[in-house]
Amino acid sequence: MTPTVLPKTQRDDMKNRARMLVSCPDQPGIVATVSRFLYEYGANIVQSDQYTNHDGGMFYIRIEFDLEDLDTRREQLKSDFSAIAEKFQMKWSVNRASRKKRLAIFVSKEDHALLELLWQWQAGDLDADIAMVISNHNEMRSLVESFGVPYHHVPVTADTKAEAERKQLELVVDQVDAVVLARYMQIISPKFIEYFPNRIINIHHSFLPAFVGGKPYAQAHNRGVKIIGATAHYVTEELDGGPIIEQDVQRVSHRDNVDDLKRIGRHIERIVLARAVSWHVEDRVIVHGNKTVVFN
Amino acid sequence: MTPTVLPKTQRDDMKNRARMLVSCPDQPGIVATVSRFLYEYGANIVQSDQYTNHDGGMFYIRIEFDLEDLDTRREQLKSDFSAIAEKFQMKWSVNRASRKKRLAIFVSKEDHALLELLWQWQAGDLDADIAMVISNHNEMRSLVESFGVPYHHVPVTADTKAEAERKQLELVVDQVDAVVLARYMQIISPKFIEYFPNRIINIHHSFLPAFVGGKPYAQAHNRGVKIIGATAHYVTEELDGGPIIEQDVQRVSHRDNVDDLKRIGRHIERIVLARAVSWHVEDRVIVHGNKTVVFN
Amino acid sequence: MTPTVLPKTQRDDMKNRARMLVSCPDQPGIVATVSRFLYEYGANIVQSDQYTNHDGGMFYIRIEFDLEDLDTRREQLKSDFSAIAEKFQMKWSVNRASRKKRLAIFVSKEDHALLELLWQWQAGDLDADIAMVISNHNEMRSLVESFGVPYHHVPVTADTKAEAERKQLELVVDQVDAVVLARYMQIISPKFIEYFPNRIINIHHSFLPAFVGGKPYAQAHNRGVKIIGATAHYVTEELDGGPIIEQDVQRVSHRDNVDDLKRIGRHIERIVLARAVSWHVEDRVIVHGNKTVVFN
Amino acid sequence: MTPTVLPKTQRDDMKNRARMLVSCPDQPGIVATVSRFLYEYGANIVQSDQYTNHDGGMFYIRIEFDLEDLDTRREQLKSDFSAIAEKFQMKWSVNRASRKKRLAIFVSKEDHALLELLWQWQAGDLDADIAMVISNHNEMRSLVESFGVPYHHVPVTADTKAEAERKQLELVVDQVDAVVLARYMQIISPKFIEYFPNRIINIHHSFLPAFVGGKPYAQAHNRGVKIIGATAHYVTEELDGGPIIEQDVQRVSHRDNVDDLKRIGRHIERIVLARAVSWHVEDRVIVHGNKTVVFN
Repeated sequence: MTPTVLPKTQRDDMKNRARMLVSCPDQPGIVATVSRFLYEYGANIVQSDQYTNHDGGMFYIRIEFDLEDLDTRREQLKSDFSAIAEKFQMKWSVNRASRKKRLAIFVSKEDHALLELLWQWQAGDLDADIAMVISNHNEMRSLVESFGVPYHHVPVTADTKAEAERKQLELVVDQVDAVVLARYMQIISPKFIEYFPNRIINIHHSFLPAFVGGKPYAQAHNRGVKIIGATAHYVTEELDGGPIIEQDVQRVSHRDNVDDLKRIGRHIERIVLARAVSWHVEDRVIVHGNKTVVFN
Repeated sequence: MTPTVLPKTQRDDMKNRARMLVSCPDQPGIVATVSRFLYEYGANIVQSDQYTNHDGGMFYIRIEFDLEDLDTRREQLKSDFSAIAEKFQMKWSVNRASRKKRLAIFVSKEDHALLELLWQWQAGDLDADIAMVISNHNEMRSLVESFGVPYHHVPVTADTKAEAERKQLELVVDQVDAVVLARYMQIISPKFIEYFPNRIINIHHSFLPAFVGGKPYAQAHNRGVKIIGATAHYVTEELDGGPIIEQDVQRVSHRDNVDDLKRIGRHIERIVLARAVSWHVEDRVIVHGNKTVVFN
Repeated sequence: MTPTVLPKTQRDDMKNRARMLVSCPDQPGIVATVSRFLYEYGANIVQSDQYTNHDGGMFYIRIEFDLEDLDTRREQLKSDFSAIAEKFQMKWSVNRASRKKRLAIFVSKEDHALLELLWQWQAGDLDADIAMVISNHNEMRSLVESFGVPYHHVPVTADTKAEAERKQLELVVDQVDAVVLARYMQIISPKFIEYFPNRIINIHHSFLPAFVGGKPYAQAHNRGVKIIGATAHYVTEELDGGPIIEQDVQRVSHRDNVDDLKRIGRHIERIVLARAVSWHVEDRVIVHGNKTVVFN
Repeated sequence: MTPTVLPKTQRDDMKNRARMLVSCPDQPGIVATVSRFLYEYGANIVQSDQYTNHDGGMFYIRIEFDLEDLDTRREQLKSDFSAIAEKFQMKWSVNRASRKKRLAIFVSKEDHALLELLWQWQAGDLDADIAMVISNHNEMRSLVESFGVPYHHVPVTADTKAEAERKQLELVVDQVDAVVLARYMQIISPKFIEYFPNRIINIHHSFLPAFVGGKPYAQAHNRGVKIIGATAHYVTEELDGGPIIEQDVQRVSHRDNVDDLKRIGRHIERIVLARAVSWHVEDRVIVHGNKTVVFN
């Protein structure tokens, strides 16, 4: 049994809905100040989730609010809010719910994680725009294009790695808000990561930190584990070491060989990745240090 | 995989910690008003969870805050808050975290649900005082008394039902905050319920609303279900029909006969009841109509 | 956490693999007789699962075995086995693993359950042939045909129900081994069921027997349940009352409205149906009375 | 959702019930030979589970059978079976279901895993005899003795480790069938392990192989995992490296600090250990290499 993978119902009119994410050192009066600010602006708080990390002394809040004429007033609101933000040393953002985040999905030869995202997107369950798919292979072109999504084939070899990355960056920088690695089997360079800090989501096919690296199902079979899993995390320079967004698991038994584990794993991977991407695009995730706060 | 059954860590000094629960018709400015009120009182909001029911137009919030000298200032705070509460037509409460709720546990002949509560209580995992155990049998006296908990034997027969209830009420009214039916096999009368509205928690041994009534495991076996469950709910006049607080399930198979289902079910029952009681005593549950909002 | 949805690994050469299913009244010597029979035939037992229902006095076994030249020798083996079968009053079957079962999938307007089956089939995870899709609407034609699967539009109205059924039967009788109702919103007539006893699999969008009928998510929301589910079952004359093959559930909360439940439910439905269909086509399910024995 | 922790129903008369476990290199005719042998002895097979590991070429079977006058005829049966066993190079055992396995439980200062075993044992859910509890501390004496179980205090210090082990061995060798480490915080020496090969069950407080060693919850918190787990395994010379019997997990969040993880973990640990011990005492586990085959 797992938490829900899906975005909350889209009510008819979300055009005035905004999502505010704030993290800052804890001190008295933050909620009062922020909620008073919003109230005086005429905003109505629709949902708010707050968490204080006592060990670390950090305060986190996610607020959804409705504000009439959000489109025209958002810049002013942000400008007015900066004084508060500065006083409390906040990291913060205010996004419109109606402005879907644009995603680039990177993929290699396995299609299951990509297909789940395309399927959920088509069904209206993934609250994002899939702007493009980029692959180091050409196999999935017709599949992807049948969804009306542009497909870019950027081959990668040991020799052309730098050049390939240049092409990828050209395609995505300023064009997408986040990059999703849907079983993309190439290492992302530190330079690429710098362009999308905490905005590259990878699905790793094990229950991290168990079985780091390239052959987790073989390792799992070898160790005789009774449960396997998958982990969605933000990509950092440390391989499979970035902040974990979501994990899930499934029971296996001695009857399952490595191929069985791979097949079972595919189902966990696609669910976990879809859930993590949903939470990211709905502004539900705050990264602090090497961990995430997920308001879901 | 299930949510955690346990109370959040008790920090060293909870004596100034308060928990506020509010429900009222939704309108702009509630969060701002409440948080400003608390801020001006010098309170620090430690955690807050809020939910607006769009279909029903209701607003719910749970706030944990720290307030210096809470003990001496709480009455004044409540009195000052009533003006706000009235304005917004709030149902509300402010409880001290340090003032543990007192529980009476009713039990018949099966001990598993009772034992789990006693065990969690002894381990410090259940944030309540178990004030007494009341049973229509005498079998568990020595067990209960070995935990240092008073045991009252109140036999119930068809003829003595009214008299038995009179005795039970004498024992519990003004003595306990809530009543837990830990597999108590007698029907609670409407009159008794009136004394403890939404404060009597029952564990029903099925995944309600499937299998209402007295023999759910036999019914489940008969229907050939692949999953069985248990349900903790507040007791209302409608048998097994009150607001559901928590449910959980476990997989079964054709190999399990009725006795197996009962045995498996005992484990679900004790976990689900313990979880529901924990959430109740930590002021995490708001009842509205025949449903619960659970901030966990 | 759930059991695996997927067929066991297809080893390279399955052409000599057979699956025997047997149910009969229990008595000593059944395993000895059957296994000796197979041994003397030169068969090698690869996997066997057995279950005796003590309350009901029934014996069930599923045996996978390899037999050289299975294709040419299967008829003789079956003919020789009938003497044993008669003696023990067995209901039995012997199927070749290499002979995939042919399925007709019935669908109305919701595509999620169908898509999961098509996707698993294309990925090689569903060990069956999808022979055709039949719908009372025309919306999914291009989707289905893009998978290379024939699509038959058979409209159904109150007036044309009998005629529509005649057309459906013409399409499926002697053409498919089983019928899958992947959110097909029409009632199947007793006459149709007679053609496919225990070979029509339906997905019901609730955790049966809770919420029988057409609007289970609205009912679930109304009752305030904390867990929702889906049920795959064989279709019998009693609405939503046939033998349950598989069920699964997912946690929900007060935050989820009816639309959220539907969306979450779609994910449970497609997983549960795919699992049940897999088990059926791999000869893992025996029906006895109104229950199933599932060897998975 | 997890598999059941509990033994199958004890039917009234188990005195003639035997459990046979066999593992050997795979070859044709094993099932036929074994089942014919049992049939000719007049035994009735009540349940059988079989598994062939194709990669490793190994055959495993567990058979429960009823044999009249089992008590007096068991030695003869075993002697007659040895010829078959030799021919097929079997490792094998035949145990009476009525002869409960005797357990020694080792414990240090945490009582939750011990209590669950005592509680299940008292409720008749653990099909074993708890022969004694051995602890390096004296704290739990009165608790254990209140269950009528002998308690041995064997202090262990760096200096007295060898002497302590000598005492422990004196208490358990030839007195118990298996040793359960219910959060026993001392390393077991290779010499001790030699006395109980694959008969010492430990509960490790992490989802192995993640977080080997002494502080798994701190490590888990540090890594920001979203799910924690526990692992029951047979003890071998490699720390936390022995064959895994069972694992289970529970969802956690950013809200849970290290103490919360410990508290949640306690519940997983006690369930997982109880399940593994049940399976061991019911002869459901075969160890091969560093893995287990569990027929449950």
